[in-house]
Amino acid sequence: MTRLDDRTQTPAKNRSGDALPGASAEAPRLDVETLGRVLLGRWSEARLASRALTRDPALHFVDGLSLDEHRARVTGQLHHLLEHDAVLRAFPTRLGGHDDHGGNIAAFEELVTADPSLQIKAGVQWGLFGSAVLHLGTQTHHDAFLPGIMSLDVPGAFAMTETGHGSDVASIGTTATYDPETEEFVIHTPFRAAWKDYLGNAAKDGLAATVFAQLITNGVSHGVHCFYVPIRDKNGFLPGVGGEDDGRKGGLNGIDNGRLHFDHVRIPRTNLLNRYGDVAPDGSYTSPIPSPGRRFFTMLGTLVQGRVSLDGAAVVASKLALTIAVRYGSERRQFTASDPEREEVLLDYQRHQRRLLPRLATTYAMGFAHERLLTAFDGVFSGEHATDDDRQDLETLAAALKPLSTWNALDILQEAREACGGAGFLAENRLTQLRADLDVYATFEGDNTVLLQLVAKRLLGDYSKRFRGVDARTRAGLVAGQVGQTGVDRSGLRQLAQTVTDLGSTGRSVGHVRDAESQRQLLTGRVETMVADVALRLRAAAHLSASDAARLFDANQDEVIEAARAHAELLQWEAFTDALGRIDDHGTRSVLTWLRDLFGLGLIEKHLAWYLIHGRLSTKRAVSVTDYIDDRLLPRLRPHALDLVEAFGFAPEQVRAPIATGAERARQDEAFAYVRAQHESGAAPRPEKAPHR
Amino acid sequence: MTRLDDRTQTPAKNRSGDALPGASAEAPRLDVETLGRVLLGRWSEARLASRALTRDPALHFVDGLSLDEHRARVTGQLHHLLEHDAVLRAFPTRLGGHDDHGGNIAAFEELVTADPSLQIKAGVQWGLFGSAVLHLGTQTHHDAFLPGIMSLDVPGAFAMTETGHGSDVASIGTTATYDPETEEFVIHTPFRAAWKDYLGNAAKDGLAATVFAQLITNGVSHGVHCFYVPIRDKNGFLPGVGGEDDGRKGGLNGIDNGRLHFDHVRIPRTNLLNRYGDVAPDGSYTSPIPSPGRRFFTMLGTLVQGRVSLDGAAVVASKLALTIAVRYGSERRQFTASDPEREEVLLDYQRHQRRLLPRLATTYAMGFAHERLLTAFDGVFSGEHATDDDRQDLETLAAALKPLSTWNALDILQEAREACGGAGFLAENRLTQLRADLDVYATFEGDNTVLLQLVAKRLLGDYSKRFRGVDARTRAGLVAGQVGQTGVDRSGLRQLAQTVTDLGSTGRSVGHVRDAESQRQLLTGRVETMVADVALRLRAAAHLSASDAARLFDANQDEVIEAARAHAELLQWEAFTDALGRIDDHGTRSVLTWLRDLFGLGLIEKHLAWYLIHGRLSTKRAVSVTDYIDDRLLPRLRPHALDLVEAFGFAPEQVRAPIATGAERARQDEAFAYVRAQHESGAAPRPEKAPHR
Repeated sequence: MTRLDDRTQTPAKNRSGDALPGASAEAPRLDVETLGRVLLGRWSEARLASRALTRDPALHFVDGLSLDEHRARVTGQLHHLLEHDAVLRAFPTRLGGHDDHGGNIAAFEELVTADPSLQIKAGVQWGLFGSAVLHLGTQTHHDAFLPGIMSLDVPGAFAMTETGHGSDVASIGTTATYDPETEEFVIHTPFRAAWKDYLGNAAKDGLAATVFAQLITNGVSHGVHCFYVPIRDKNGFLPGVGGEDDGRKGGLNGIDNGRLHFDHVRIPRTNLLNRYGDVAPDGSYTSPIPSPGRRFFTMLGTLVQGRVSLDGAAVVASKLALTIAVRYGSERRQFTASDPEREEVLLDYQRHQRRLLPRLATTYAMGFAHERLLTAFDGVFSGEHATDDDRQDLETLAAALKPLSTWNALDILQEAREACGGAGFLAENRLTQLRADLDVYATFEGDNTVLLQLVAKRLLGDYSKRFRGVDARTRAGLVAGQVGQTGVDRSGLRQLAQTVTDLGSTGRSVGHVRDAESQRQLLTGRVETMVADVALRLRAAAHLSASDAARLFDANQDEVIEAARAHAELLQWEAFTDALGRIDDHGTRSVLTWLRDLFGLGLIEKHLAWYLIHGRLSTKRAVSVTDYIDDRLLPRLRPHALDLVEAFGFAPEQVRAPIATGAERARQDEAFAYVRAQHESGAAPRPEKAPHR
Repeated sequence: MTRLDDRTQTPAKNRSGDALPGASAEAPRLDVETLGRVLLGRWSEARLASRALTRDPALHFVDGLSLDEHRARVTGQLHHLLEHDAVLRAFPTRLGGHDDHGGNIAAFEELVTADPSLQIKAGVQWGLFGSAVLHLGTQTHHDAFLPGIMSLDVPGAFAMTETGHGSDVASIGTTATYDPETEEFVIHTPFRAAWKDYLGNAAKDGLAATVFAQLITNGVSHGVHCFYVPIRDKNGFLPGVGGEDDGRKGGLNGIDNGRLHFDHVRIPRTNLLNRYGDVAPDGSYTSPIPSPGRRFFTMLGTLVQGRVSLDGAAVVASKLALTIAVRYGSERRQFTASDPEREEVLLDYQRHQRRLLPRLATTYAMGFAHERLLTAFDGVFSGEHATDDDRQDLETLAAALKPLSTWNALDILQEAREACGGAGFLAENRLTQLRADLDVYATFEGDNTVLLQLVAKRLLGDYSKRFRGVDARTRAGLVAGQVGQTGVDRSGLRQLAQTVTDLGSTGRSVGHVRDAESQRQLLTGRVETMVADVALRLRAAAHLSASDAARLFDANQDEVIEAARAHAELLQWEAFTDALGRIDDHGTRSVLTWLRDLFGLGLIEKHLAWYLIHGRLSTKRAVSVTDYIDDRLLPRLRPHALDLVEAFGFAPEQVRAPIATGAERARQDEAFAYVRAQHESGAAPRPEKAPHR
């Protein structure tokens, strides 16, 4: 399956002074089909079913539509998905679903190649609006509301975000005050900042909404709860409900995002989605979860699937972008270099490899990490692994991976676009539109920066639990460089005990950087030390006033976030490394191991200053990281670049970019043949430098 | 002019364990008006005239237009600019222009706040099409063609790029073969890759084009020359001319980019723009520049203004983005932190400062560097400083600054968008559209990666000239750490002799990092050492075959590009530092000095691994760089953030983003007043935790 016709490497010297290692005759062979199966993962059936659907042009983004036309098209596409049984996997079997939570997300993720607007609008209807009823409601609500939601008879909005509050859901201003006289809740928007905002389906299609509001009964506020509120009928807004269209956005314009506000709108008491908190007719409040804080986080936790699916969609979009850029880079030629007769293929330039191959490695890492996340998600939502710890681990894992993958996707889409030059900027080649659509993935379903702080707080909490009872001197000694396996292994996310057997080894300078164990030690040691360092600095908070403690935390905020990022990178690396064990084919595993090394060493190179400052790498070893990437890994991986994107398995109908179809190769070959024929026929003009030869 | 009502810092401990330095009573006062004048620079009049124009809604981008509507609107806007005498400054006075090259570019740059499409379409007509006639043609052409171009009677395309060749102009495939029988040139497109592509005005409006083609006469190819070719009349394409619409793009959709091809199209001999090469009626070729290579670069050099103006436009767009994000960040509140009564203003969070303030510093650096570039440009094009060295310096400077500023603008626009959360993604707040439009600035008018390689080749060439005649042992000694002022000072771009008087000091570990001299030494030493290192490795190329030499260069390509980037960063830092000397007001200079320090230390922090590996910073000093930024510079600059963007001087009609108008503050105040009034009246619900107080 390898296509090495563009390979031009022959021995020359690199920066280390060694001969450049072109792919030799004994170079490993990558089995695209085998690798493709590994990448499809556990929910391959759902993914393939979704991919079969997205080959249909009826689901594809069409360029140049007006806002109204695009919205109407996407609304129609939702019905198309419904008719093809593509969107109800997560709903109860008794109502026509399949109780298949992992498969549902996997299928959903693949929709991004058709049109991210279609994907997100489907997510609003069945993933958010429907899920709120499913997970926050009880059987009465399921029976009453889910059939209409599932069938699209009742398009709905997920009314959580307000103009004044996004990621800080606990502080929303909308109120739901119980009136025992009429046994109704009164939904009310007390000021402009409490308008519900940015809600898909709110501007146009939505007939109902799951509205998050502060539940007040008997003069007591019980915090945020969710209510099922009809908002429109055929004639428009119902009495007391109003709103606005959010208008055009930076992307995702197939979705009718809008604002809603409520002027003392009355709904029956039973429209409270009462799984985690209920109000009796007399107004008395009960909840199975006594702590208001824990209750709040439990309710929000049921909505983690938004983050899980964005993580997966970011992976799919990154694969698509690299498929386009690597194919074009394997055909496009520019400037003569090693061969005076013919221009060089872009991907034979070191810089072009530096631009695309590490991002290819990152995409593989993101994909393997996502598969872990999806497995954890399915475990919790199927009930198979659904302890409180499992739930918390899932939430922390989602909060760690979603920021990295959505940011990486934007970076990858942009680099792919630039690597394709002006051709990458043409709408027909899709990279700019995908980037525009995915832009908001970085700040919705939890702002990435806020999510990383959640992760950091978890890491710090685990660290503090681990050291409870350890006296200050011992702790200081451990922190100073001997953290080892006692560090953060109760993060629940990974068991360091399984991986770092040499206690304290992460505190020492690493002798080699190329092997997997060294990469693991370097990446693990960095997380542990960063967490321990921050924890040590934050200890003083215990003796400070609340506001001074907040200032102390803020003065360390940047490092807190970086520690969370380091943790998430380690998770990606571990997932990649574990996946190597699932690849039986020797050649494929060899190539993937180089790719994993490129990912791991890329992380170490990115944080090289940290490793030097903390004495984990000597300057000589630090230099060797870059040399190894440039002189070994990139040249080794270059011949496999096309296969590595072919393994993503996209059909032409998923790719759809003219520059990724071989058109560029045909143009290059035609031009080359023309020039050669001219020279052979003697018709070519002579160059000015030698006019009289 | 300071607005410190959001300032909340009071003493607390930072990561160094010191008290956090809130802005004390003796904090310097920034004079916004004085600073604004400094920022307007030498061509303030042209800038202010352009800004006065761009307040007119007639010139503003309107959201939601179809492709045709947007194109038609922008075409109309060009006439508006013309009627207001806004676009002809660079043309000869005798034809109605003003021979004002610097002012022309300055005015052009400011158009980006109206609509980048308008800006670039104006650039196509008067800056590219018109400039080609002006700078590559002679008086006959000026008299014949410029009046129609200037008056917009003849909209035209600048037909340089081909589908097969962008930045590598020398390799284009279009031919212009002289036919002495008829005294005509025959313009021809021999294959698909030689179609002219991506030309503004080509899809719809263009009546003529300046076509770049390989000039062939008497069987000899004299390389790329430019020809004036009519392409359309009222009925459409002229015989032999054909083309296509490039369709929708990632941005700049107000411009009708398209493709052109020529099937043996005949034009008069005199339509060759013959300033640098001419063909006599009998077909004999003459040129004032004997070397074909030098002739080619001289011709292309006249077109440097595209790069100069993109550099300036990137600065203006960055200023606009930060104006929006800093204003919103000064009003938007989210999560309670130091004050339990009221949520924290975003810009009081360390991370938010880390996201916006260093980018503010970078924008100032970009702006001051651009002013230098514009001065160099005006010197060359006015003829006041127009030696060959001046021209080469200008081209190198433009090639160094344009990549950094255009990439930085994309980074700044994106960070601003994310820092504004979902509000940043609303089209009405402009950040996404500006980013979409400016995306292509990174790859047109010279791909950024290609430009940095041009810069590196110049640096390497200067280095090699400097060391010509120096024996290998001396050279090795110098390279090893004693480069000092003998290094690259003949780059013409700056005179190290003026700045580093202590020969060899850049080779030693630096004891302090905070003062300007240390920053200068660190930044300068890095450029010198990187260039010297690469030069040493590339020396072997002299003894290699051409193809092996190319491979050797490629194996060092990444470092070559990084050396050029380091050089460009140093230029920005020097421009910023020089500008401090032009600020008389003491308080303003103090604040700007902190901002310059933030820029300089930010660069050093970014490249910290390099400084550690090369022994220029001890690990202790390396740590102090980050500490100084977090604990000193960010808190000091925070109270001045609003003033620093107010000094950019945009009118509301230039900003136009609803989130930057104070609307958010009004919403926050209304919500706060509501909650406070509720509490004071006793109507507020009690929290669940203390239901029976």
